[in-house]
Amino acid sequence: MKKPIIGISMGDPAGVGPEIAVKALNRDTVHSVCHPLIIGDAWILERELKRYSPDKTLHVVRSVHQCRFSAEVINVFDLDIPNSQDIPVGKISAVAGNAAFSTIMKLIELALRGEIDATVTGPVHKKAINDAGHHFTGHTEIFAEYTGTENYAMLLACEQLKVIHVTTHVPLREACDLITQGRVYSRIKLMHDGLMKLGIENPRIGVAGLNPHAGDEGLFGDEDTKAIQPAVEQAKTEGYKVEGPIPPDTLFPKALGKYYDGCVAMYHDQGHIPFKMAGFAWDDVKQAMKSVVGVNITLGLPIIRTSVDHGTAFDIAGQGLACEEALVDAIKYAAKMCED
Amino acid sequence: MKKPIIGISMGDPAGVGPEIAVKALNRDTVHSVCHPLIIGDAWILERELKRYSPDKTLHVVRSVHQCRFSAEVINVFDLDIPNSQDIPVGKISAVAGNAAFSTIMKLIELALRGEIDATVTGPVHKKAINDAGHHFTGHTEIFAEYTGTENYAMLLACEQLKVIHVTTHVPLREACDLITQGRVYSRIKLMHDGLMKLGIENPRIGVAGLNPHAGDEGLFGDEDTKAIQPAVEQAKTEGYKVEGPIPPDTLFPKALGKYYDGCVAMYHDQGHIPFKMAGFAWDDVKQAMKSVVGVNITLGLPIIRTSVDHGTAFDIAGQGLACEEALVDAIKYAAKMCED
Repeated sequence: MKKPIIGISMGDPAGVGPEIAVKALNRDTVHSVCHPLIIGDAWILERELKRYSPDKTLHVVRSVHQCRFSAEVINVFDLDIPNSQDIPVGKISAVAGNAAFSTIMKLIELALRGEIDATVTGPVHKKAINDAGHHFTGHTEIFAEYTGTENYAMLLACEQLKVIHVTTHVPLREACDLITQGRVYSRIKLMHDGLMKLGIENPRIGVAGLNPHAGDEGLFGDEDTKAIQPAVEQAKTEGYKVEGPIPPDTLFPKALGKYYDGCVAMYHDQGHIPFKMAGFAWDDVKQAMKSVVGVNITLGLPIIRTSVDHGTAFDIAGQGLACEEALVDAIKYAAKMCED
Repeated sequence: MKKPIIGISMGDPAGVGPEIAVKALNRDTVHSVCHPLIIGDAWILERELKRYSPDKTLHVVRSVHQCRFSAEVINVFDLDIPNSQDIPVGKISAVAGNAAFSTIMKLIELALRGEIDATVTGPVHKKAINDAGHHFTGHTEIFAEYTGTENYAMLLACEQLKVIHVTTHVPLREACDLITQGRVYSRIKLMHDGLMKLGIENPRIGVAGLNPHAGDEGLFGDEDTKAIQPAVEQAKTEGYKVEGPIPPDTLFPKALGKYYDGCVAMYHDQGHIPFKMAGFAWDDVKQAMKSVVGVNITLGLPIIRTSVDHGTAFDIAGQGLACEEALVDAIKYAAKMCED
């Protein structure tokens, strides 16, 4: 089986992205599932390589076919970012935001042209990107815009939980307005297809209610019976293995216990809270997250895109403290999705 | 130190309440922290005692001063429920709902008169209670109504997490409307006082945002900056150790890691999802929850009230499968709150 070529953006160069990209490529498991190619800046990656992979060779390329794939070599697609050595580490800046944005643009371009098989993104800072004049609420929206995708959704995945979102970066009130039968139904389908791509046959999907107790038979709101229930019935009729609306505080503990293969969440925090309860761990001695497990997968795009689910972690950038586990997982999920 | 007398309602007699009440009183730890008194029906409790505590003696009383407190004796305040032997187990019925309601009324009456020091409630079924003509959304609202309390809140407590709610049993849209500075501020104060009563000195409280990323500086809604932020500032000025609004998906993992002693949640599922992720565990072999840890405490009442946070579990009622752990915890929390 031919290994897929996976493009990995270094993310915001002021954050932990370049560090975890280099650290991830120290892992044999990454090279065993794919040919990795970092999209970024040669000077920045050289700096990180000296710190974290002094035994490896940096191979700078300007096109994919120049790559020399080997576990001893770190290939960097160099975007030759102007004055990259002057970017302040650990701080929000427009120059870093612009650099991060350009790595995403290159990833999308290479994937749409079929030169790479999947894209994996390092953490970016929304304010830095917006300060640089690119007005997006996040990675997901950038990928949707530049691939011309309308029907897409954010899937959070870790070993214990897989959660897709009907709405994400909108006020909670607006999220309530956006819960329609059509939107819920489309997410059930995207989730089913996504779980199949992750190797789960005939997945069982649980759909959360919107309101407390899933509305308690209309006592606490009617979206559960008027929008979510019909979407579940429609999907069931078409053969999907799906249940809902389930009271949200029952759904996620049951999914954690393996009853559901995947969950459909109605709004950002309904999905993100249980997901981070399962995958994140706070170290109160070090006063930092000691684990930030979790992969963010955009479903519905014409290309494969996975990402770490944590941020730029400016507070620990440049200190060698960042953990590459989530990025390694994101690469593994992307490689899995390339199998067919 | 004199042990407090704690009244324990048997809950809905068709559910697991009577079973776990008797099982809980088999635990030495319960008798070591309090004098327990079950409020219920002598016939039903006799049946459960024969099954789960055949070595103990049932002592039926009609007033608190008749009790004989000893670890070998189970005291039952008999409400002499008509035809209690005919109540169908495992089913919703108005007769069971009415019986459950009468145990709550008696608990409140005894506590307000000072004859018992604290109240602990077993699980009831909302529909059964409503079918019996008592129109309430839950225990909490019944306690508020019959003690004439306006400013109260539901605190969920387990070893790992303590969460108070600004809103609970209302549609999510309405919860958004109910987030005001005054309401959030009052919950911070209630939480502070509640945590002190639980023995936590100078507690650190984290207040959740309402919107994704706590609104992200107004990008996703303005309740976070207009209502929650001013409430936190007001409480800080008065010396409370409080932070917020915190992005909800960050707050709860940090609290789990001991950074916060208590959390303020804006709506039912924002608090219930992380709480049940921490305390509930699904057994996919037995197809049932194997752990339902968690205590529900009503703060702001003139009396002490704690409760199990799980339901009547009609599906396993009468089979001896119910776990009394949560009720034991509820009794321990009530006893702790009696210390002064």
